[in-house]
Amino acid sequence: MKCFLFILTSCTCLLINSPASADDLPLSEASAECIDCHSSIHPGIVSGWQQSRHAMVTPQKAMAVKGVARKVSSTTVPEGLQTVVVGCAECHTLRPKAHADTFEHNGYDVHVVVSPDDCQTCHATEREQYAKNIMAHAYGNLANNSLHQKHEHAILAATKFVNGKMTQSSANDATRAEACLYCHGTKLVLAGSETRDTEAAGELEFPIIKGWPNQGVGRINLDGSMGACSACHTRHSFSIEIARKPYTCKECHVGPDVPAYKVYAASKHGNIYSSKHADWDFKSVPWTIGQDFTAPTCATCHISLLVNTDDEVVVERTHQMNNRLPWRILGLIYAHPHPLKPDTSIIRNKDGLPLPTDLDGGFASKYLIDEKEMEARKQAMQAACLNCHDTSWVNGHWQRLENTIKETNAQTLTATRIMQDIWKRGLANRQDNPYDEAIEKKWSSTWLFYSNTIRFASSMAGGGDYGVFAGGRYQLSQTLLELNDWLELQKKLDAASKK
Amino acid sequence: MKCFLFILTSCTCLLINSPASADDLPLSEASAECIDCHSSIHPGIVSGWQQSRHAMVTPQKAMAVKGVARKVSSTTVPEGLQTVVVGCAECHTLRPKAHADTFEHNGYDVHVVVSPDDCQTCHATEREQYAKNIMAHAYGNLANNSLHQKHEHAILAATKFVNGKMTQSSANDATRAEACLYCHGTKLVLAGSETRDTEAAGELEFPIIKGWPNQGVGRINLDGSMGACSACHTRHSFSIEIARKPYTCKECHVGPDVPAYKVYAASKHGNIYSSKHADWDFKSVPWTIGQDFTAPTCATCHISLLVNTDDEVVVERTHQMNNRLPWRILGLIYAHPHPLKPDTSIIRNKDGLPLPTDLDGGFASKYLIDEKEMEARKQAMQAACLNCHDTSWVNGHWQRLENTIKETNAQTLTATRIMQDIWKRGLANRQDNPYDEAIEKKWSSTWLFYSNTIRFASSMAGGGDYGVFAGGRYQLSQTLLELNDWLELQKKLDAASKK
Amino acid sequence: MKCFLFILTSCTCLLINSPASADDLPLSEASAECIDCHSSIHPGIVSGWQQSRHAMVTPQKAMAVKGVARKVSSTTVPEGLQTVVVGCAECHTLRPKAHADTFEHNGYDVHVVVSPDDCQTCHATEREQYAKNIMAHAYGNLANNSLHQKHEHAILAATKFVNGKMTQSSANDATRAEACLYCHGTKLVLAGSETRDTEAAGELEFPIIKGWPNQGVGRINLDGSMGACSACHTRHSFSIEIARKPYTCKECHVGPDVPAYKVYAASKHGNIYSSKHADWDFKSVPWTIGQDFTAPTCATCHISLLVNTDDEVVVERTHQMNNRLPWRILGLIYAHPHPLKPDTSIIRNKDGLPLPTDLDGGFASKYLIDEKEMEARKQAMQAACLNCHDTSWVNGHWQRLENTIKETNAQTLTATRIMQDIWKRGLANRQDNPYDEAIEKKWSSTWLFYSNTIRFASSMAGGGDYGVFAGGRYQLSQTLLELNDWLELQKKLDAASKK
Repeated sequence: MKCFLFILTSCTCLLINSPASADDLPLSEASAECIDCHSSIHPGIVSGWQQSRHAMVTPQKAMAVKGVARKVSSTTVPEGLQTVVVGCAECHTLRPKAHADTFEHNGYDVHVVVSPDDCQTCHATEREQYAKNIMAHAYGNLANNSLHQKHEHAILAATKFVNGKMTQSSANDATRAEACLYCHGTKLVLAGSETRDTEAAGELEFPIIKGWPNQGVGRINLDGSMGACSACHTRHSFSIEIARKPYTCKECHVGPDVPAYKVYAASKHGNIYSSKHADWDFKSVPWTIGQDFTAPTCATCHISLLVNTDDEVVVERTHQMNNRLPWRILGLIYAHPHPLKPDTSIIRNKDGLPLPTDLDGGFASKYLIDEKEMEARKQAMQAACLNCHDTSWVNGHWQRLENTIKETNAQTLTATRIMQDIWKRGLANRQDNPYDEAIEKKWSSTWLFYSNTIRFASSMAGGGDYGVFAGGRYQLSQTLLELNDWLELQKKLDAASKK
Repeated sequence: MKCFLFILTSCTCLLINSPASADDLPLSEASAECIDCHSSIHPGIVSGWQQSRHAMVTPQKAMAVKGVARKVSSTTVPEGLQTVVVGCAECHTLRPKAHADTFEHNGYDVHVVVSPDDCQTCHATEREQYAKNIMAHAYGNLANNSLHQKHEHAILAATKFVNGKMTQSSANDATRAEACLYCHGTKLVLAGSETRDTEAAGELEFPIIKGWPNQGVGRINLDGSMGACSACHTRHSFSIEIARKPYTCKECHVGPDVPAYKVYAASKHGNIYSSKHADWDFKSVPWTIGQDFTAPTCATCHISLLVNTDDEVVVERTHQMNNRLPWRILGLIYAHPHPLKPDTSIIRNKDGLPLPTDLDGGFASKYLIDEKEMEARKQAMQAACLNCHDTSWVNGHWQRLENTIKETNAQTLTATRIMQDIWKRGLANRQDNPYDEAIEKKWSSTWLFYSNTIRFASSMAGGGDYGVFAGGRYQLSQTLLELNDWLELQKKLDAASKK
Repeated sequence: MKCFLFILTSCTCLLINSPASADDLPLSEASAECIDCHSSIHPGIVSGWQQSRHAMVTPQKAMAVKGVARKVSSTTVPEGLQTVVVGCAECHTLRPKAHADTFEHNGYDVHVVVSPDDCQTCHATEREQYAKNIMAHAYGNLANNSLHQKHEHAILAATKFVNGKMTQSSANDATRAEACLYCHGTKLVLAGSETRDTEAAGELEFPIIKGWPNQGVGRINLDGSMGACSACHTRHSFSIEIARKPYTCKECHVGPDVPAYKVYAASKHGNIYSSKHADWDFKSVPWTIGQDFTAPTCATCHISLLVNTDDEVVVERTHQMNNRLPWRILGLIYAHPHPLKPDTSIIRNKDGLPLPTDLDGGFASKYLIDEKEMEARKQAMQAACLNCHDTSWVNGHWQRLENTIKETNAQTLTATRIMQDIWKRGLANRQDNPYDEAIEKKWSSTWLFYSNTIRFASSMAGGGDYGVFAGGRYQLSQTLLELNDWLELQKKLDAASKK
């Protein structure tokens, strides 16, 4: 009889998720008009949306859900939107005056780029949390930091080799959009309009948007807001299933600078995910540990609302992804306590540089969270761990992570001491740009890639290979020796030239 | 009621795909004899075939299908083959005189290696298209290009270190078969025969085939034909499902020289594929955008026949994979318009070298497609994009790709200028072999790996990490500086030695 | 009607696998007490176990299974355990006196770390085989080998740069546990006890275990046994499905030192697995080729009991994973016949070093398996291959693998000859530690990474990119040249300084 029950359960789910008749799916007149043309012109967009929850539920119904199963966090939604499903027009005609890219399109004031300030109409809490997330500020944190600008330049600069000299000039906007800003987000700017001859409706006018397309986490939108919900909630299905799977995070977190996905995929957690996730429920809200899933994905530890099998809330949902993270282990020279504010361009270390540590590894504590907040974030993270691991396991894991942070910071200090000696001797030029010479890149790879990969391996229990041979301690120790050898060689050459 | 309908639909599919009785699956006497023994000896082969479409449909039935759902492109199929399913004997005894490896086996003239010229019996159009595909010529494009031969030698050569000198000698055939030719295809040669004592039938004679096994895309077969359909249509299931999934392309397109799979897997497209493909239909012909799948795989953009939800053909099927590609972005020093003909060994640049560009990046235009053809191919590719993206999105994407091509070609020119200076000064020997010294390999990694990876990231919207830190602009900029530093060091050493 | 049959089949399976009533699932009183508290405290652990076979079958029932379907290999199981399912207490209170970490917990003598000697209660054969597996000795094979200790030190050492000199000191235990020992296994040591205030039961005392947590394959347990079954049989589901999927092996076999997973994932076998495994049966015992699966995973070739579709045993199950392996292709300077005994720390080469070859590549044959045993292991492996490939295919494949072994050993000899010249000239110090200088690391990367990756590509038919461009022959040839160039540079500098 189990089989019969199983089928019944499945049917029930289907019935809950997909209202049975069109009466239950009231589409606004405006959205119906959109779909009329666009279902032929852009079948992929329309069918993506049709499979989305937005196409299946009105805000009114969604707001009627009580307790932790509720997905719409706003307490009020404008009346006109409450009783229709969330169609094309509901988002793309919201707040027309706020969007610089609003244009007249078949009688409607439509904007191309839907922004977090549009989404907050229904999802106010998530939008508010995300604004405090360092990721929302990813554009400015790069663009408004003079040192990071030098680093970007050192990586992207156009080069020439003329008369035996190599020269560098600034990368153009298209290159910048394909590189750092692909993930950080571009700054969208309205650059005029153009007329295009369309198949469906003849000549139409459309806005030209510099920086488009882009789905970076800190995109500067045409209403001035920061962020792109679509970075994770893939348009136009906006699927919670996709956002909860690790491939979403992988889009930006896969390279040696932030190898989260690679480490996860080689961890015990990643193994269980890969082996078993076909049996899990990625749509359930709240997400029940041990029932909906048996090992964490990225979202489990960093974002999702988790309940245990007694329906008790284990961890609250957060879209300020770093608030279960005491330490910031990537991107900068040394691991350090997380920045206090999401705008990190305001940080100054004791030498006045826009860095969260000084070159000796000392913390710019004024701009970073304090020990109390670090402890609170640790507790928030461990609250998830403790559902599948006992206290001694979790403590043992955490002590090793903190040891790894100390260890890699100490190794980075060694690399930096050598680099400082090189700068002091005038063998490389720090003042101009500390990142743009070959030997400086060797130095930056010790912390940007190797120390970093080692820390990811420790933090995610990702183990051996990423901690040792795959961009880990093997490469770190080798690069330290090569930095030192380079310095020795230069000294030797110097001595030889002085003979 | 949805549930009930769902089950009905599933049943219907099953009934269509798998004829219910043996009467509908007429097996030739010859194939029945094969299976008699081989189902015990090679259960994996036989069960693979049993699950294949070949085992389930006769050519006659397949040819009765009208319109875009038809899978058999030949207009005529020899009568003897029409009313039996496509079993072992149907392929392995075809055209016995054409195959050098045909041998007497239990009363049949059997050949080991089934070739595209066998497959064209039913799949004439695909075979014809594939012959025009540069991949069909992958063996000769390597073996008949004197410069590429030098590159292969520089990578595979056997080395010795005797009396303080390192020497290189040619790699043997087995090494070559395991290296470049693994993907490019080996040249199969009949090398005699051997008697083996078999469990099932005592002593039997079998051909010995040099270069076997191999499934490279440009394999030279024993009937003189080029290519291996099994490279993608994995034997013996010949599954369209497998061919359409990205893991097939990954077999050859995963390394830093052609990181298509890695970039795809980290792109938004790859994320959607990984998250959702369990719900997609990979067997449907034609393949309906938004219904059968909601994000492209490799096959979607490069090969498959696509229709929209109105059953209109959006892009035609092609087995000349490059005919939706205006640019060739991999493998050579500079990105360039695609070669006009699939045999690229005939190309000569202005300096007489078998390269599609000269060392300064100028195109050997006579041998490459012209702007009109480039435009046509761009339109063919964009026809797929436009189903899920509007024109401004697609244009924005394409402009960035073309910018990336210019950018990386310019960076490669810088690397090459430094290399030319090195050659000119006699610090490396270009004439002998431009690829076989350490510094030459550093140069070739700038275009073969890094510029190339950056272009793949741009072309496939694969984004940040592969465009920057994972074999992208970080490594490219570092290697440019290292090339320059090496030259400076040599100058310094030279000066020191002359003192 | 197929549909109906399909559903019936599924139901039947469910009924067989999951006894319908609680009467069939007799839980011991002790385990019931555990679950009482821990289902709330550790829902992930309890639900993992509830989905496991251990929770569904009593040893008595499991032992009643006849023939190759039997999973419990012990012929006798203590009476008290026979008629209850394998719950928490059944494992965690076994042999209390043998475990140093046994502690009083709510009236029971509980130990934290379940060991292979506990598991052997039911799985005697597997435990016995695994004890002969080189992996069981992974801790001592590293810790008791003076040369490997030097290598570990060279990779993990803490460094400082003071007064222009770089110094190294030993890594601490936490770093070692996060690095090599993460996979090899830590040595667990009872280090006292601590009182923790628990939510469920107030103050309780728990053991403190140094080296915990760890699931390395050669972990030294608190009962003195070696190994962790949970390394592959992931706690607490102990799922054969997970163990048979390649992600389990990937946890330790993914880096450039042992790129098995990467090579597999890019091979034809891996392609078929990735494309089709959702349709396979990973729980069936025995595992039927062509029916339960159509391409091998790691477990298929190295561990599992395989039968063909005639129910004939093709290969016996083994937990001595290396007994289908004639050659050991990873980790050491040269590929060599597999060690005779799992404790490799006893090996001495002709120069008295604890290595299976001398520096010239000669085998320490006394400690390695002989040709007869190599042949037997080759036959055992090929017995699996031959189900899907004919003899000429398998022979061709194997000849290439053996050619690759010879080729890469020869290339490694070249690298070593250069290194020996460097040592002889005093340009690096071998005596002290042959692995801890930058140039020595360049040398070790030729064999530890590149020759190794090339061999994996050949052995697993993983083909082109891993054999050439992705840590293969391209990088090997480049590194050989760089070693040679470095030596030449030093000679030149030497000459200059002597002028």
